[in-house]
Amino acid sequence: MESFDLNDHSHRRYNALTGDWVLVSPHRSKRPWQGQQEAVTIEERPQYDPGCYLCPGNLRANGETNPDYPSTFVFTNDFAALQSETPAGSFTKGNLIKAESERGICQVICFSPRHDLTLSEISVPEIRKVVDLWQQQYLELGALDYINYVQIFENKGQVMGSSNPHPHGQIWAQSSVPVEPAKETVQQAQYFQENGRSLLADYLALELEEKTRIVLENEHFVALIPFWAVWPFETMIVSKRHFQHLGQMTDAEKDAFAAIMKQLSEVYDRLFQTSFPYSAGLHQSPTDGQEHPEWHFHMHFYPPLLRSATVKKFMVGYELMGNPQRDITPESAAERLRGLV
Amino acid sequence: MESFDLNDHSHRRYNALTGDWVLVSPHRSKRPWQGQQEAVTIEERPQYDPGCYLCPGNLRANGETNPDYPSTFVFTNDFAALQSETPAGSFTKGNLIKAESERGICQVICFSPRHDLTLSEISVPEIRKVVDLWQQQYLELGALDYINYVQIFENKGQVMGSSNPHPHGQIWAQSSVPVEPAKETVQQAQYFQENGRSLLADYLALELEEKTRIVLENEHFVALIPFWAVWPFETMIVSKRHFQHLGQMTDAEKDAFAAIMKQLSEVYDRLFQTSFPYSAGLHQSPTDGQEHPEWHFHMHFYPPLLRSATVKKFMVGYELMGNPQRDITPESAAERLRGLV
Ligand SMILES: O=P(O)(O)O[C@H]1O[C@H](CO)[C@@H](O)[C@H](O)[C@H]1O
Ligand SMILES: O=P(O)(O)O[C@H]1O[C@H](CO)[C@@H](O)[C@H](O)[C@H]1O
Repeated sequence: MESFDLNDHSHRRYNALTGDWVLVSPHRSKRPWQGQQEAVTIEERPQYDPGCYLCPGNLRANGETNPDYPSTFVFTNDFAALQSETPAGSFTKGNLIKAESERGICQVICFSPRHDLTLSEISVPEIRKVVDLWQQQYLELGALDYINYVQIFENKGQVMGSSNPHPHGQIWAQSSVPVEPAKETVQQAQYFQENGRSLLADYLALELEEKTRIVLENEHFVALIPFWAVWPFETMIVSKRHFQHLGQMTDAEKDAFAAIMKQLSEVYDRLFQTSFPYSAGLHQSPTDGQEHPEWHFHMHFYPPLLRSATVKKFMVGYELMGNPQRDITPESAAERLRGLV
Repeated sequence: MESFDLNDHSHRRYNALTGDWVLVSPHRSKRPWQGQQEAVTIEERPQYDPGCYLCPGNLRANGETNPDYPSTFVFTNDFAALQSETPAGSFTKGNLIKAESERGICQVICFSPRHDLTLSEISVPEIRKVVDLWQQQYLELGALDYINYVQIFENKGQVMGSSNPHPHGQIWAQSSVPVEPAKETVQQAQYFQENGRSLLADYLALELEEKTRIVLENEHFVALIPFWAVWPFETMIVSKRHFQHLGQMTDAEKDAFAAIMKQLSEVYDRLFQTSFPYSAGLHQSPTDGQEHPEWHFHMHFYPPLLRSATVKKFMVGYELMGNPQRDITPESAAERLRGLV
């Protein structure tokens, strides 16, 4: 009888970081694709766009004018999903209808004054300035007593809902800990309690030994496709040292973090010869006043493309009603990315 | 001081059915949209398409020819994500790397021989035949000893990853219970144990009293926007009677279920004057040989559109890294849909 093989047979993989599962169907990418194709935007963008509300010196929706910033620039989102003045309160009916008011702050961060570049195209020292700003924002927002979690992220590309190509990211800082980092807190805390070590440090050790899912590494960070990756070319950047948040990063680590982000996004751009779209985000300890020794700093990249610059993976019917499903193995995806380093 | 108001202030809502949370930002839909627009396909489709692998009499990828079916037609997916011959097995390393083989069956169900119609355009007696087939498939697949969950769903529209416009749905039946129904099992079982009643029956009673989130109802079913809805115009069809699965539906309930599906999809089509895209799926009790008295049959509709036929809601950076977020309240969405009944 044939024996079970991860490369040939459908299986579920456990996400040790969240407790969720993903269905992996190695054979499925062979099916022909007649569905939706994404538009590829290869427009030549100008270095400065007078109509862009993120370019230096331009007018924003709230009537303010952007300064003539030379590197990075941060401001409060003019159409914020979270507001600092939201009054406290809740609304309940029995135990089935339950809402709680949510206070917060939404920031926009421009990565560069140049309208025509992306993270893969700006220099490491420039990305380092983005890291510095993230660090400062994490500490500043996290210090507010009503902010218990600071979510730093970037949506890159129209297919990821980005409405402006100017290189920028966002920060949503809020009172409660969102669902995903809350799950990661539970899993990491349980592991830390049982083993006295960081879940991701132990996981990283396994991966560095195995090598099949590693994409690239430098002195302080590793970029890999997690064993439980959901998106076809999903990656995670994990720090080699076990620390909780951006505020604890050394200068050398900040340089190395900037360098690995640039290198990884260059690899991504090479994969389908396109400015590779993704949502990326940092996961770090909540700013709820507790120590969280279990937390291990990392960054997720969730890119939607599956087959080419125009064919993405759709997370739809089965994925929404059942659980996420992927069509190529993480190991084969890592091999392709590794070949492009 | 201003007091907390669900219509004005950002807040989190608890999903009693899954235990998750969603962030609601009532004011956010005011932001201007300069991002990606979906293509609207208003092609006139022929009643029969010689190039369609779902039309009667046509050749499929595996070399078989479709019968000249007069109403519905079911066959095993030629590019199945789950296969019945998958050998049993698992793969683990420590407690951080864990995979289990997954056996299953993927079916495709044609809703009609007509290539040019959708669920909102075929008659109630024809939809009733789809319900009959779903029932038969649920019972037949569920009776196999290695099938513990039967997920019935439809992806409608290119934006939802559907690669063929011929009206059809899918069934993925498998050994393990996927993440979403597993969460619903936990929540419903806990409520049933504590209260001796169905969670969704009690929830439905609250909603029928409140009326603000009801879209439409008939003798046996109610279509409403759940208090915790994630997608802008997400709805749920809930049975008035508490029963566990399709196999227990009476003839009158099957007729009423067909009728409410048709009526709801007509309302959807009217909203943005377009053939409204969505992923829809049935949630019912696992077929694991247990009774599951806690389970209450229902159907979810997750439509992506937010503002018009071309502007959808993007579930991206914050939503993937934090938790789902919505820009209009469920109550205002329900009011709009109710106005189109
Ligand atoms: O099976 P289809 O229609 O080709 O594929 C579609 O539905 C599947 C189940 O939700 C998804 O996994 C695919 O990403 C989507 O394109
Ligand atoms: O804030 P933006 O870039 O306008 O909006 C984008 O990112 C947000 C945060 O992930 C999402 O809620 C929006 O759906 C998306 O279009």
